[in-house]
Amino acid sequence: MGSDTPLSLETYLQERKRIVDEALDRYLPGRENFPPTIFESVRYSVFAGGKRLRPILCMASAEAVGGVGSTVLPVACAIEMIHTYSLIHDDLPAMDDDDYRRGKLTNHKVFGEGIAILAGDALLTEAFHLMSAGDRMKGVPADRLVTVINEIAAAAGFFGMVGGQVADLESEGKVVEKETLHYIHVHKTEAMITVPIRAGAILSGAREEDVTALTEYGGKIGLAFQIADDILDIESSRDVLGKDAGNDEERKKVTYPALFGLEPSRKEAFELVQGALADIKYFDRKADPLRSIATFIVERKS
Amino acid sequence: MGSDTPLSLETYLQERKRIVDEALDRYLPGRENFPPTIFESVRYSVFAGGKRLRPILCMASAEAVGGVGSTVLPVACAIEMIHTYSLIHDDLPAMDDDDYRRGKLTNHKVFGEGIAILAGDALLTEAFHLMSAGDRMKGVPADRLVTVINEIAAAAGFFGMVGGQVADLESEGKVVEKETLHYIHVHKTEAMITVPIRAGAILSGAREEDVTALTEYGGKIGLAFQIADDILDIESSRDVLGKDAGNDEERKKVTYPALFGLEPSRKEAFELVQGALADIKYFDRKADPLRSIATFIVERKS
Repeated sequence: MGSDTPLSLETYLQERKRIVDEALDRYLPGRENFPPTIFESVRYSVFAGGKRLRPILCMASAEAVGGVGSTVLPVACAIEMIHTYSLIHDDLPAMDDDDYRRGKLTNHKVFGEGIAILAGDALLTEAFHLMSAGDRMKGVPADRLVTVINEIAAAAGFFGMVGGQVADLESEGKVVEKETLHYIHVHKTEAMITVPIRAGAILSGAREEDVTALTEYGGKIGLAFQIADDILDIESSRDVLGKDAGNDEERKKVTYPALFGLEPSRKEAFELVQGALADIKYFDRKADPLRSIATFIVERKS
Repeated sequence: MGSDTPLSLETYLQERKRIVDEALDRYLPGRENFPPTIFESVRYSVFAGGKRLRPILCMASAEAVGGVGSTVLPVACAIEMIHTYSLIHDDLPAMDDDDYRRGKLTNHKVFGEGIAILAGDALLTEAFHLMSAGDRMKGVPADRLVTVINEIAAAAGFFGMVGGQVADLESEGKVVEKETLHYIHVHKTEAMITVPIRAGAILSGAREEDVTALTEYGGKIGLAFQIADDILDIESSRDVLGKDAGNDEERKKVTYPALFGLEPSRKEAFELVQGALADIKYFDRKADPLRSIATFIVERKS
């Protein structure tokens, strides 16, 4: 990185995405296995063109504290699997009922609801299978691994992503308080952005104060990411975003811009990113990718 | 145990069920938490009257190799959570579409499909959260824990329970070969009965040969359990079994009795149990509960 020009960040993100994509392809069983439908279904959604932000953050965080990105790659990919499972289940008719995501038909539209539910279940399970695989996680002390598994499960569970999705589901079509919106964003999105950052650092044996600083950074960019997402939902056309833009508004889904207005939301996201940069100000140049990613999060167009 | 009379087994199973129920109640967050629906939904299904066979086997296996049942209790309960999640998702309209289980309305009939899907997701996630909780798993070396997490994830995943459910879903209403039926039983049921037995032994530091013998025992009682279940489905009335008896036949679901006949199936289950008893013949009296449970599995009436 270093120069922090948009071009170098783009190259960095592309290169990292390639590494993550290749690893996911290696870790996930192939379509030649029985029963083939489940592997087709899982691979359809895993390779539907995600930005791989969470695994990239996990590796970048490991490197920011002097660790090695490739060492944490299985955990980074496991988090992406959990993220993908949540998208598959969120899109189901009983949840958000979305037909498109990233410009492609959603999993249940292609494979049916039963297989889509099972594909999500399988991905969530495989995430924990991958993280605990001795041959994949060589060189990482078992106690650190147990800690990280526990944190990831917490971020994905009752008091993390699932809790956020329940609150989101229950508030659709209702007048929602600022507190509820904040609860949904923190639990549904922020938790699963903070945890790869913490995991990368903890697995690399980071000092506690560095993990704390990175957690602060993660919380802020996680919330900024969600606000930016809400803004993109309003602004983008379906061609750019690959899902039904304006969908949130149509379904009266609670969003930041709906509650605070577009400009105040933009300002909030910008300030969060400034705060995140301040949190890791004392880190050396190895944290430059984390700095660039923070800026990218609010400036991205998709 | 010791005397192996039906009465003492009954008392043993009741006492163990009580221990497991109390532990699950302790481990699962209460309904006072936010958002309350998810905790109500999860607790509705977890406390719907299961026999707790899997956690009881886990503790009995730990004790059979000289370990302590209470030490493995969190892992035992985590496996019960995974079992419960699989029942919730299996009952969904997109899967088996069952309205009743154990005499009670299924989760989605009470809480709706969206919450039922999320309740399953939350239970699966919480299982891994519980197993990796340092304060719960005191005294168990981290490397053993990682091994057990990996085995449980494998048993529940692509090449275990999820794979079995996919094959089951895809074979409904079709003429099914013996091999497919065997695949479904081994993956959907046997894997999640063998794994608590292995987990109990591994967490207790069992010798490899004992783990191997217990695995053989588990495979046989697991298959016997599924055959007995298929037979019960035909024979029992809804009052006894608590779900729509004869439901499998009605939906042309593939079962052992349908493929081989009732008597040959009964004989097969009986012979599997004899084989399981032979596998652990050399264990001392600490394995008596495992012996009684093996017999119970084919003699139970519900």
